[in-house]
Amino acid sequence: MNKVNIEEKLSQFSDYLSPKIVGELNGQQVKLAKLKGEFVWHKHDEEDELFYVLKGSFDMEFRDKTVHFIENEFLIVPRGMEHRPVAHEEVSIMLFEPASTLNTGGIENEMTKIVLEKL
Amino acid sequence: MNKVNIEEKLSQFSDYLSPKIVGELNGQQVKLAKLKGEFVWHKHDEEDELFYVLKGSFDMEFRDKTVHFIENEFLIVPRGMEHRPVAHEEVSIMLFEPASTLNTGGIENEMTKIVLEKL
Repeated sequence: MNKVNIEEKLSQFSDYLSPKIVGELNGQQVKLAKLKGEFVWHKHDEEDELFYVLKGSFDMEFRDKTVHFIENEFLIVPRGMEHRPVAHEEVSIMLFEPASTLNTGGIENEMTKIVLEKL
Repeated sequence: MNKVNIEEKLSQFSDYLSPKIVGELNGQQVKLAKLKGEFVWHKHDEEDELFYVLKGSFDMEFRDKTVHFIENEFLIVPRGMEHRPVAHEEVSIMLFEPASTLNTGGIENEMTKIVLEKL
C-alpha cells in the first residue's frame, strides 16, 4: 500500500505520449501521461479506456464529433470506438484501463509504447 | 460516451457514506463519495480498491498504521487488507473498484449500501 501523489509523479517526467504506470489493481492499471499535439486514430477492440484531465485541456476526436475536456473532467471511451486525442497545449491526464491495453490500440507504429515505465 | 464533470457531480449530492456511480468500464465502476466521521473497519476479500482524494483530506487507518491523504493523492488498498477511512472534516473522494464491491466489504451493517445511485 503506497501513497501516490499526482503532482510528485507528474514532476518526474516530461516526455509526451509515453504513459507511466503509477498503480495496478484488479487487472487494471492507472497511468499518467502528458500529451501535446495530435495522436493517431485508433481503437481498442477489447478494452474500455478512461481519460481523466489533471491539468490543461484537450480535444477528443471521434469520427462524428469532437469533445473538449478541461481539468477534472473525464470520459470513458467504449471498446471498439475510434478516437484520437488532440492537445493544442500540454495536457496531463490520468488513464484507467486494463493492463493489456496498448496505447495505439489495434495498430502499431512509431507512437506505440510496448513497455511502459513504472513510476 | 459522456463527459463527466467532477464538480458538477459533487454538487448533486451531500449525503455522507453513500457512493454514487459516475462511470463503468471493464467490469469496474467509478464512484464519487463524501465522507465525514469514522467509517467501519472492513476488508474486501476479492477486490482491490482505489481511493483518490478530490477535495479535503482524510486518514486511512490500517491495523498497523495510519496514513494521511490530501488532495490529488491516491492509494490502492489491496484485497484482504483491513482498513477504515476516518475524515475529521468533509472529504470528497473518487473510488475505482470492481462493480461487485460492497462499501462495507465482508460485513453488512447499517452503513452498508446495497444499491447505489447513478449520477
